[in-house]
Amino acid sequence: MQRALSEHRSVSGRSNFPNWYQAVVREADMAENSPVRGSMIIKPWGYGVWEQIQKELDRRIKETGHDNCYFPLFIPLSFIAKEASHVEGFAKEMAVVTHHRLKMIDGKLQPDPESRLEEPLIVRPTSETIIGDAFSRWIKSHRDLPLLINQWANVVRWEMRTRLFLRTSEFLWQEGHTAHADASDAMAETMRILDLYREFSESTLAMPVIAGEKSENERFPGAVNTYSIEAMMQDGKALQAGTSHYLGTHFAEAQNIRFQNEAGEHVWCHTTSWGVSTRLIGGVIMTHGDDDGLRLPPAIAPKQIVIVPMLRNKPEDADVLGFCQALASQLSREIAFNEPIRATLDMKDIKSADKRWNWVRRGAPVIVEVGPRDVANGQVTFMRRDQLRDGDKVKSHGMAREQFVSEAAQLLTAIQTRLFMEAKTRLDSNIVSDIASFDALADYFGAAGDEDEASEFKGWARVGWSQPSGAALDAVEQRLKALKLSIRNAPMGQSEASLGKCIFTGAPATQEILIARAY
Amino acid sequence: MQRALSEHRSVSGRSNFPNWYQAVVREADMAENSPVRGSMIIKPWGYGVWEQIQKELDRRIKETGHDNCYFPLFIPLSFIAKEASHVEGFAKEMAVVTHHRLKMIDGKLQPDPESRLEEPLIVRPTSETIIGDAFSRWIKSHRDLPLLINQWANVVRWEMRTRLFLRTSEFLWQEGHTAHADASDAMAETMRILDLYREFSESTLAMPVIAGEKSENERFPGAVNTYSIEAMMQDGKALQAGTSHYLGTHFAEAQNIRFQNEAGEHVWCHTTSWGVSTRLIGGVIMTHGDDDGLRLPPAIAPKQIVIVPMLRNKPEDADVLGFCQALASQLSREIAFNEPIRATLDMKDIKSADKRWNWVRRGAPVIVEVGPRDVANGQVTFMRRDQLRDGDKVKSHGMAREQFVSEAAQLLTAIQTRLFMEAKTRLDSNIVSDIASFDALADYFGAAGDEDEASEFKGWARVGWSQPSGAALDAVEQRLKALKLSIRNAPMGQSEASLGKCIFTGAPATQEILIARAY
Repeated sequence: MQRALSEHRSVSGRSNFPNWYQAVVREADMAENSPVRGSMIIKPWGYGVWEQIQKELDRRIKETGHDNCYFPLFIPLSFIAKEASHVEGFAKEMAVVTHHRLKMIDGKLQPDPESRLEEPLIVRPTSETIIGDAFSRWIKSHRDLPLLINQWANVVRWEMRTRLFLRTSEFLWQEGHTAHADASDAMAETMRILDLYREFSESTLAMPVIAGEKSENERFPGAVNTYSIEAMMQDGKALQAGTSHYLGTHFAEAQNIRFQNEAGEHVWCHTTSWGVSTRLIGGVIMTHGDDDGLRLPPAIAPKQIVIVPMLRNKPEDADVLGFCQALASQLSREIAFNEPIRATLDMKDIKSADKRWNWVRRGAPVIVEVGPRDVANGQVTFMRRDQLRDGDKVKSHGMAREQFVSEAAQLLTAIQTRLFMEAKTRLDSNIVSDIASFDALADYFGAAGDEDEASEFKGWARVGWSQPSGAALDAVEQRLKALKLSIRNAPMGQSEASLGKCIFTGAPATQEILIARAY
Repeated sequence: MQRALSEHRSVSGRSNFPNWYQAVVREADMAENSPVRGSMIIKPWGYGVWEQIQKELDRRIKETGHDNCYFPLFIPLSFIAKEASHVEGFAKEMAVVTHHRLKMIDGKLQPDPESRLEEPLIVRPTSETIIGDAFSRWIKSHRDLPLLINQWANVVRWEMRTRLFLRTSEFLWQEGHTAHADASDAMAETMRILDLYREFSESTLAMPVIAGEKSENERFPGAVNTYSIEAMMQDGKALQAGTSHYLGTHFAEAQNIRFQNEAGEHVWCHTTSWGVSTRLIGGVIMTHGDDDGLRLPPAIAPKQIVIVPMLRNKPEDADVLGFCQALASQLSREIAFNEPIRATLDMKDIKSADKRWNWVRRGAPVIVEVGPRDVANGQVTFMRRDQLRDGDKVKSHGMAREQFVSEAAQLLTAIQTRLFMEAKTRLDSNIVSDIASFDALADYFGAAGDEDEASEFKGWARVGWSQPSGAALDAVEQRLKALKLSIRNAPMGQSEASLGKCIFTGAPATQEILIARAY
């Protein structure tokens, strides 16, 4: 199977990227499609990555004052209807529960007609409505604000075309929901979380992103402002990796979330919501994978250092095993990324060469191979997954065992940094900023009808923008769509100086936006 | 609200136990009913307890070699139908998804008839079928065994009568699913988990349990043997707090889970499944709560030591706050139950007396109150929640600050132990074992028709049992049901000596069973 991935080596993993992605997910044993259309099974190695993501992100969410809760999976149809009436462009693809019993009728198990629900229930696509309903009961006074809640949960959005981790009908995520006394406090929360996502993505996932504001048409339905972090995949496409929404008082008004302020008046709360999902795992794969499979940033690798004993069914096997066990336990007492190092000894009953390649494909950051000669010399031989090869040959390093143990944490940190820098260089050097007209943009990205050109690595363009709205914005999006392009976001922290013209309207630009093909 | 609970003080929390339970859940701010009938909202303090339970239990599950995965929420109807045809007494109350789109029709949002699913989907009530389907693909050779998988998930079982944590339509749980090469390996797993649950319940929840085998009629549908842990609540009723099932080859045969053994033959796997749920939180409340509210075992308390500053809007407030902050940070560097102590400073903008009672009702193990005099004397004044009162008066202890910090971990351990011993004494001293006939049993528990008698504290009975089966067992259960009683389990580790007669059949007893009223 190593071969299946290596076929793509010559094309740097970018040609036929979708096939390469599927192969990496399969060969790294991360996830698979399930018999339920659109739903995936997350396998131990993939779920282990999610657990590391959860742990790190949960710590940050709690440190910024948020409490975890759990709200019901089912949402009454009336809640959605209330929301729908306020929200144009309301997404309607949702799983609907209509019965609560199965019955054998004419020898066939089927929904019992007598168990039809008076009001259908919706499997949550997101929890604004059900959490907002609770907020309307929980919040009475300014003393109850800000109310900062987070939930880790599964959600369902019926999808026709699915791809493991990137787009599935059911996925796992966290959704934050907060209520504030005024716009400035709610906006500060929105930006704090956007920055938390950016920092988490860069430092923990080693995935550089650009944080910015989505265009008016890309806002979450009902939001006043929507912000995103966007990451560049190795095919040059953008992946929206997280969103943070300032909802104004729209949801508060729809759901009667009010508080008594210090003056004794009852006023609407300002609310926010924000989330990231298992989609991040897809982002990690497409950011760091190479032609040998996955490469995991050590901060989220379920196993950071894997020890493979080279056993030969000979008496010296006992020494090799003893050496490996002692090494694993020494490593486990070292600290990297504020946690004990996750070291493991691979005792599976298969050939050691197969073990090596299993761990290479799974992206374990460091793979140690120990044979009798290593034991005799008190040394270890190891591979760095981030720099696996020298030309075509696998590169291995020898080091005295004690030195390896004492430097293991530094080694993991170096790998984390190197993966980040590699991706950061790719992002920084693949955003063109000298495109001055729509025609130049179209030339640069090529005709969308041509599949070869459309799949060629092009990166992103940063262009002048006059913030057209309404029908003018719709027209811009149509023109972009014909090129399979879209507006990603308007990056934060822009200088107001030296903006040229809007490449769509010709009017003076008021900001710059990122244009890209996207997932 | 303290009063609402205290009304029950004179009856030791046992009279009108259901009302007392509801009041404790509400006043401890653990959970509330949601607008979706049968589903609950788990609030931060309740969810915090669940997070501690998850963390501790997850560690034990991983230490015993199990990997976490995630399987789809939805199960195709055909999977359930296949199972149903094999299983008599198959539970049919399930949420059924029949449509995947909402549409505005005649001005009303409703399931779009055109989105009707060809095959309805069931919201998982448990995942044996969908996980078994994966096992049938994953397992090929004896080298793949044992396969040890666990999942943390939400599940739905439609319930007509619900009670927060104890019985809700949606609940959170972990479900383990394993496959083995033979019966003895699968049975060893079943018992290992039963003992893991017992040990976890006793050491982490401070909730003593009796582990044993369920009767034939109480087995999980399709199981060969079902084992449970049963805990005694303060009203004397039993709570089934966890189950572990040996499924033989029934599920393997229904789902084609086979492997090639070393002799090259294709044979069925033996499987197990096991789970505990948010119901454990209900068990903790009914085991440890008292007339002032909840008492949490320190091992699962989201906050173990709460510091309440006694502020008076005077200049010395700054000293009090500084003292409290230093104390909290010192405590956070101490280790209890292998984790840093969870200490917190309550800065809410309410009166300090209200803060005290908030934390009393929530069951924080240690509450420290710090006033200017404490600061001046370098001491702390604290309450132990497990021994809150001396008669009617609240009992507080003074201690030099440094001593309090250095002894904090011991104090938490002492509280954990004391809560366990209190519950253990209650369990041990309330199982009658001298009941020799069914009439004596009926006399002891009183007529079920009489609500007063039925709600009186009676504990459990341990009686001789000849293991009748089939119709004879059904008859026994009917007789017990008329008394609102049921067979809980046949405790493990019975001596074969000195068994009397079966109180139901009069035949020589082959074992003893526990009889009780139950949740």
